[in-house]
Amino acid sequence: MASASTSAVISFARGVPSPDLLPVADIAAASQRALVDDAAGALAYGDGAGYAPLRQWIANRYGDGDAGRVLCTNGSLQGLALLAEAMFAGSGGRAVVEAPTYDRALLILGRFGATVEAVDLQSDGLDVDPIEAACDAGRAPGLVYTIPNFQNPGGMTLSRAKRERLVALAREHGFLVLEDDPYGELRFDGSDEPRLFALDEGAGNVVYSTSFTKTVAPGLRTGAMVLPPQLHGKLRKLAIDTYIGPTMFSQATVAQYCAAGSFEPGLERMRAALHERRDALVAAVDTHLGDRVRYVAPAGGYFLWIELPGVDADALADAAEAGGTPVVKGSTCFADGRGREALRLAYSACPAADMDEGIARLAALI
Amino acid sequence: MASASTSAVISFARGVPSPDLLPVADIAAASQRALVDDAAGALAYGDGAGYAPLRQWIANRYGDGDAGRVLCTNGSLQGLALLAEAMFAGSGGRAVVEAPTYDRALLILGRFGATVEAVDLQSDGLDVDPIEAACDAGRAPGLVYTIPNFQNPGGMTLSRAKRERLVALAREHGFLVLEDDPYGELRFDGSDEPRLFALDEGAGNVVYSTSFTKTVAPGLRTGAMVLPPQLHGKLRKLAIDTYIGPTMFSQATVAQYCAAGSFEPGLERMRAALHERRDALVAAVDTHLGDRVRYVAPAGGYFLWIELPGVDADALADAAEAGGTPVVKGSTCFADGRGREALRLAYSACPAADMDEGIARLAALI
Repeated sequence: MASASTSAVISFARGVPSPDLLPVADIAAASQRALVDDAAGALAYGDGAGYAPLRQWIANRYGDGDAGRVLCTNGSLQGLALLAEAMFAGSGGRAVVEAPTYDRALLILGRFGATVEAVDLQSDGLDVDPIEAACDAGRAPGLVYTIPNFQNPGGMTLSRAKRERLVALAREHGFLVLEDDPYGELRFDGSDEPRLFALDEGAGNVVYSTSFTKTVAPGLRTGAMVLPPQLHGKLRKLAIDTYIGPTMFSQATVAQYCAAGSFEPGLERMRAALHERRDALVAAVDTHLGDRVRYVAPAGGYFLWIELPGVDADALADAAEAGGTPVVKGSTCFADGRGREALRLAYSACPAADMDEGIARLAALI
Repeated sequence: MASASTSAVISFARGVPSPDLLPVADIAAASQRALVDDAAGALAYGDGAGYAPLRQWIANRYGDGDAGRVLCTNGSLQGLALLAEAMFAGSGGRAVVEAPTYDRALLILGRFGATVEAVDLQSDGLDVDPIEAACDAGRAPGLVYTIPNFQNPGGMTLSRAKRERLVALAREHGFLVLEDDPYGELRFDGSDEPRLFALDEGAGNVVYSTSFTKTVAPGLRTGAMVLPPQLHGKLRKLAIDTYIGPTMFSQATVAQYCAAGSFEPGLERMRAALHERRDALVAAVDTHLGDRVRYVAPAGGYFLWIELPGVDADALADAAEAGGTPVVKGSTCFADGRGREALRLAYSACPAADMDEGIARLAALI
């Protein structure tokens, strides 16, 4: 094995597609069509809720067909920021998150005044029991934030039974579920669970959030939410008052990309690459970390979460970064200081051929 | 004269370039080069402060050459929102604005907790006297927000003498000036005044804000701020925590557009069209509104502000909108209910040939 200090960087840190997976030629063609077919639409301020043809495509694929419920934003995190500001700024309230969860979501909820409470992530997704107990005790939250598919950072997927329970609880106790689903299209094992949004059947208790960052390209910064009508109006106004309108040029490009039929073939390429990379990473983890590691192999998405009982994972992550193998500390994914014996390994941007070397480096540092 | 009800809409409402002024072919070519030359850069998350080559171009043209002080955002309003949140959220503070001023800036400052105080806009720009008096009384503001060139909505330009006084006061009393300058490149009469940022000579009391919305295209949503280093770090972190990074595809496109030398010719076309439209609008106002109107003819930019003493301009604006000639109510540009006898007329998107008919409609409604 080459020493870490003389090898190139092998990064497990960022949840991004590797450059070789970006559909550059299809995006280039789509952006040209956007300017030829509808230059005024692609280059104007447009509607604060986004580019109409893209909103319709999103409504058809992820929503209930009503483009009036779709709000396109400059990446889906911007949508979460608008929702958090609309729900919590000035008034406060309680938001339930998974532990561990996406670190930036934690920051945003706290920044706009939510009191954040965590429920454990289990192998079949978030633990619904404490949410139900809180509701029964008259302490229903305002919002439950979940990443149901191939969760960030855990990689786990919420089971069908828990989805139904969560939606039923939301309806009964009047809270909102934010279904943050940037990875749902990237399943390579098994079959899809129904979206919480679909299980809600239009009752208005679920906001569905999607993104083209993981399925087309991050630099287009195009995400979207499907919202209940009243919330849509509120967030659209807040969007207009914050940035007037989202980036129409990107959205018109994505709309043309989808209309041309490039989306599905792009997904197939992405899923195949992620599948190969997941397999290579899991094999490397088994080989080099053996029985000192615990994990649930993800059925899709970008991330493998590993627990290393007895290992100071924060220190390991620092040493790994210094040695050219950056990873994400598990502790950054909790609000309460847990996760010090865990790491998030993103396999999305790491070639399969580098996995063994990368994990061997980590193992050597333990 | 055709009756309003049977004529097409003639809009003086929105401060946008008309579609015929958009440099579609140059943008198309630039976006292709962006993907050929640097696909990974144009399509990745990139740095939260924006696309490096564009930041350098902005630093060279508007700043002090240091790209590390430039923060590109999804339109310049997003930058103002980040600055307002960083300065006022949680802590409050006082922000001075011009009266009248840009309505969305008013909203944002209030939304993030600033106490907004207004100073009158005079024919040579904001009145510096009350700011100096407040400073002398120990009540220096935290921020002075000014649109120094071809102000929105007033059209006035801040004089050289007042620029020097304002910068000197900022330095002496330690407040920040936000120089919001989306129109500065669009002068068609006279010669440029120095930027407040330049007069500050790097002392860190002026933030310069620019945008490609008025000079290239709104739908690219590309604006930028030149910031003192400490504030840059703070706003960059807030940007990352809000939307990870701005739209790299747009920024790489703008960078290529500028690198190809398309920016200056585009400005020349825009200035020539605005000049013609300003002349036609002023002539129409003189013809149809005669001595019942007061205005200062702008030397650049998008807007003519007219005062109509004794006229209920809010009611006039409602009637004009209903009659197919939308304008902006002066009252929306004040925080304190003034402006009820004034209107903002945007000539940027109205063909010169329509000006006479449009103003004749307004005059008929008085």
